[in-house]
Amino acid sequence: MIVVKIGGTNGINFGAVCADVAAHVQTGQKLIVVHGGSGETNAISERLGHPPQFVTSPSGFTSRYTDRATLEIFAMVTSGKINTLIVERLQKLGVNALGLSGLDGRLMVARRKEAIRIIDPATGKQRMLRDDYTGKIETVNGHLLWLLIEAGYTPVIAPLALSPEGEALNVDADRAAAMVAGAVEAERLILLSNVPGLLRQFPDESTLIPHIDKARVEQSLEFAEGRMKKKVLGASEALQLGVAQVIFADGRTDDPIANALAGKGTVIS
Amino acid sequence: MIVVKIGGTNGINFGAVCADVAAHVQTGQKLIVVHGGSGETNAISERLGHPPQFVTSPSGFTSRYTDRATLEIFAMVTSGKINTLIVERLQKLGVNALGLSGLDGRLMVARRKEAIRIIDPATGKQRMLRDDYTGKIETVNGHLLWLLIEAGYTPVIAPLALSPEGEALNVDADRAAAMVAGAVEAERLILLSNVPGLLRQFPDESTLIPHIDKARVEQSLEFAEGRMKKKVLGASEALQLGVAQVIFADGRTDDPIANALAGKGTVIS
Repeated sequence: MIVVKIGGTNGINFGAVCADVAAHVQTGQKLIVVHGGSGETNAISERLGHPPQFVTSPSGFTSRYTDRATLEIFAMVTSGKINTLIVERLQKLGVNALGLSGLDGRLMVARRKEAIRIIDPATGKQRMLRDDYTGKIETVNGHLLWLLIEAGYTPVIAPLALSPEGEALNVDADRAAAMVAGAVEAERLILLSNVPGLLRQFPDESTLIPHIDKARVEQSLEFAEGRMKKKVLGASEALQLGVAQVIFADGRTDDPIANALAGKGTVIS
Repeated sequence: MIVVKIGGTNGINFGAVCADVAAHVQTGQKLIVVHGGSGETNAISERLGHPPQFVTSPSGFTSRYTDRATLEIFAMVTSGKINTLIVERLQKLGVNALGLSGLDGRLMVARRKEAIRIIDPATGKQRMLRDDYTGKIETVNGHLLWLLIEAGYTPVIAPLALSPEGEALNVDADRAAAMVAGAVEAERLILLSNVPGLLRQFPDESTLIPHIDKARVEQSLEFAEGRMKKKVLGASEALQLGVAQVIFADGRTDDPIANALAGKGTVIS
């Protein structure tokens, strides 16, 4: 089993990723797709008159501030638009794709972060934010994924989860992909984005780190910039859950999955 | 098995419908929900600067004119927003709901209407419209629905379908519900809307027709006004597919499913 995370970032070649997913599924490879959707959510939020807001934690992680209106836009865009378009494209390529969000069949249950500590951009001081609908995934319904996969379907997963109280939550797609990979005991997790992998000196692509020993993945956080921090955390979580190999690879190429499997990118094992 | 169609029209008491779905599922009743989403799609289309357009066929049926941009908005709203909110609400009530559109696992395959004949509102004359992404459902993947139902999930279906060529299509939700009911050999199809049933003289609710013999359902088209025409066609299709009873019932009441099952509304059998 391979879990492929497709970033929502600009530059990702969705057509090429889907064609490569189809090529691998057609050889009998079992595969799950997890996708993001931040960029498109931002664009549609602007058009709907509810512009996106981001917050930064004291340790430097940036995340979306998700009030209930934002959550509904995020659901609409990731689950309704991006997920549907990926499923449509895969179906056109002959893959029997099936879209899910984490709410469906309690696929991903997450703990809502009741209060998150942020750096107030106006004052530079820390304060607590309480009306945020963001969660950290705690369980993935692997039975549902296996039920579908064994019946011949290829799951395509949008980054929403359900709280134990039954609230929809926005979750980080990289970490969702990691938890999914762990739940189905995937051999590999491939995280595709618009960089060739983890760079020692971002954005200098000649400083690509080709391999990281899984015992040292947390140390590599020091090289991770912005979004890459969550990918490194996701990698660490997946490895702890028994995934043998995590690959950060370039989603802008013609054969991104084949390239990743051939070791192009940053391989963590 | 019962298939319940929840209209997207104003006035439907979504909370009461979901609570009644939960009450029935919790007694062991197998149930599938199909929903619409026209009203919400119109509102969001307006806000996104792509206002909805409707066309009328020579025989008097009104339908959405769905260019590709409209199709993507329709998918976003029905599959991403309405479906997600129904699944969230049912999950909160303890129902293990699972949302699907007709694209997922080729749940609903429809023939695209390559060209539709419409009455041009400007001239009153007939003309052909060719760039419309609307379809008529031909097959429903009953195996997928049974796979999920037997595993304890309650499917919630958005009215999108896939063409044999792999294009996403907008489909009529009433007729989708009818085809789903036929595919799973449901005993009953309940179509909830914001009227008490089929009225002999719309909108006079005192003229409710309590029962129609299934042999005479097509004749009752003469009483059907606007949207109700498609419900009558859906009823006819469901009965032809072996569904024993179709009930047009009031979705604005506190216990709409229980009321429908008790015979309140228009019962066709």
